[in-house]
Amino acid sequence: MGKRPEITTDKDVQKKMVDTGQNIANQIKRGDNPAITLPVRNLNNVYFDKESKTIKLGDKTSQRQFLNIAHVRKFMQTTLVANEVNKVLAEKATVSIRDLYYAMKHTIPGTQEESFSGQEESDPLIEDLEAALDLLRENMNLIATPKGRIAGNLQVKDGKDIIDATKMGSSGWAIPSNVEPEKIEIKNVDAEYILFIEKFAVWNRFNEDAFWKKNKCLIVTSNGQPARAERRLVQRLQVEHGIPTYCLMDADPWGMYIYSVIKQGSISLSYSEDRLANPTSKYIGLTISDVEKFKIPKEVTIKLNQGDLARIKQMKDYEWFKKKEWQQELDLMKEKGFKLELEALSRKRIRFITEEYVPQKIKNNDFLP
Amino acid sequence: MGKRPEITTDKDVQKKMVDTGQNIANQIKRGDNPAITLPVRNLNNVYFDKESKTIKLGDKTSQRQFLNIAHVRKFMQTTLVANEVNKVLAEKATVSIRDLYYAMKHTIPGTQEESFSGQEESDPLIEDLEAALDLLRENMNLIATPKGRIAGNLQVKDGKDIIDATKMGSSGWAIPSNVEPEKIEIKNVDAEYILFIEKFAVWNRFNEDAFWKKNKCLIVTSNGQPARAERRLVQRLQVEHGIPTYCLMDADPWGMYIYSVIKQGSISLSYSEDRLANPTSKYIGLTISDVEKFKIPKEVTIKLNQGDLARIKQMKDYEWFKKKEWQQELDLMKEKGFKLELEALSRKRIRFITEEYVPQKIKNNDFLP
Repeated sequence: MGKRPEITTDKDVQKKMVDTGQNIANQIKRGDNPAITLPVRNLNNVYFDKESKTIKLGDKTSQRQFLNIAHVRKFMQTTLVANEVNKVLAEKATVSIRDLYYAMKHTIPGTQEESFSGQEESDPLIEDLEAALDLLRENMNLIATPKGRIAGNLQVKDGKDIIDATKMGSSGWAIPSNVEPEKIEIKNVDAEYILFIEKFAVWNRFNEDAFWKKNKCLIVTSNGQPARAERRLVQRLQVEHGIPTYCLMDADPWGMYIYSVIKQGSISLSYSEDRLANPTSKYIGLTISDVEKFKIPKEVTIKLNQGDLARIKQMKDYEWFKKKEWQQELDLMKEKGFKLELEALSRKRIRFITEEYVPQKIKNNDFLP
Repeated sequence: MGKRPEITTDKDVQKKMVDTGQNIANQIKRGDNPAITLPVRNLNNVYFDKESKTIKLGDKTSQRQFLNIAHVRKFMQTTLVANEVNKVLAEKATVSIRDLYYAMKHTIPGTQEESFSGQEESDPLIEDLEAALDLLRENMNLIATPKGRIAGNLQVKDGKDIIDATKMGSSGWAIPSNVEPEKIEIKNVDAEYILFIEKFAVWNRFNEDAFWKKNKCLIVTSNGQPARAERRLVQRLQVEHGIPTYCLMDADPWGMYIYSVIKQGSISLSYSEDRLANPTSKYIGLTISDVEKFKIPKEVTIKLNQGDLARIKQMKDYEWFKKKEWQQELDLMKEKGFKLELEALSRKRIRFITEEYVPQKIKNNDFLP
């Protein structure tokens, strides 16, 4: 079932970096003003694509020119980034974007000028190269700190090691920072769905209760706002193996927004959402209407604050929250004036969430879109 | 080599909770004013113990009385916590302190009074019970979100699963939130030392370079300020298997303070430091004198800010930083006016830290105490 993963080798990526430099060298030899063409990465060039149902970057581009006083520093820095990425790949190393910044930081010979004054100058240029060259930063061997865990009937190959996520005890398999098909091969998976859980403590409840075994699913936690790796892994399991994702979040604007990032992506990563967003995801809970449906005592709800109310208003205007079910849910939250955390279900009883709440929701197909 | 781990069973802990309640019931039957005796957990009762070389709680105690208007709410809440912990243990579940708070939150029948108005009311009472009953919170099946990773020749048993930290690929074994001997059995370990690394990205460098294999060690990262589990695991490896810890931190007041917490403990956890602190730990780096010793370009150092300078002054006054090597190091930092991050070593070359810096430090026995 599904699609075979596309492999992007280190050599492919190195070629893109070298071509970028070669292209500039050719422009210089021809006597042209050297320039790099980059997609525009601001809000004016980001849109919700109704066909793929994900956030996408539009096709506006701009030129970064060497012979332009407003561009020249960034032009120089962009070539330094491409050069350093090429070196990292040649060394077969993966590094953080902070390592990359330090590796490039130097005083330009014969001047008092620093190549970069801070990491805030190098990070956006990495994103420029990702967008311009149609690469994920993981393809460039750049990694972020991963936070996710997974348990269930999934076996992967990571380097020479075979890891079995049914045998990872109480902590689960720590999702690596780079889960690209070149690094992580999905050897086998047998699951009807993925339960994507916002909070570690709640994931722990599902793991301890062997929910994944009894219900033939995978349980994942992002431990808060998901890092790229958790989103990418879940997307691969959907695309390559047809496994749908159900999201279990706090019933508050922040939990619901995290869901929307998992499903259709974020504005800031619009240029990579074709490989991160997971548009068939569904929202299993919590919802505000659960309070009546499951007779949850009002004492464990939390009064909305001004920040929540402002966020609800913003979210109602996002195109991807325009579906009537979401408009109703957000209106109900405002009307009732409260939000609710996953841990609040412990007030019913410790195993209410694993033995009643989620099973009943799945049985009744009780999702938000 | 070393000591066998002490096992604290769930039944032992339940007995302590029930005894606490029974004791109160007996006082009531006798017509006494019911009271609970608790260690004083403020700065006046915390000291640095020169014999064990750890931070400890002194022997001052206070009474929490039922018939005292200033105590009665906390008295009631303390009994609720003991009762709920007993329930969690009876259910053979582990939960977060947030779950515990929600499970206890209710309106007291016949009143408008809430049992707890927020989690800030229940957390200190958990600490009171830990200190009074000589328990770690993990013994009460209360867990925090873990962040640590470990790789190297270590095999553990977690429930029915045997986990081999030589075969955990790029992400390492995720250190569970509860590493008490009742939960995690150390089946086998073969390592000359533990390299405790502050930052994940740096740990990743050591893991990718198979440093643990080439150098017969374990590599651990706490991913910032260590959670309890990483400290406890490293302490168990020291106490039960005689494996020393070398700490690799940023050369700044915060990195150095994290080291001191690993070594002698923290004031806020003084009541548990006999099972968390690891007083034989050594500081391998970074140091300010490394900049000259290893010819690190000045460009990658960072100017100290006012917060750093204030922190240096505070740290110089802590009893556990009074050793002359630390006084010299802190003076040198102030004199030079800069700090340095681990990632800055990438400026030398990507593998400088794994191939030159740490091996040379170990070879020359070049540690701070």
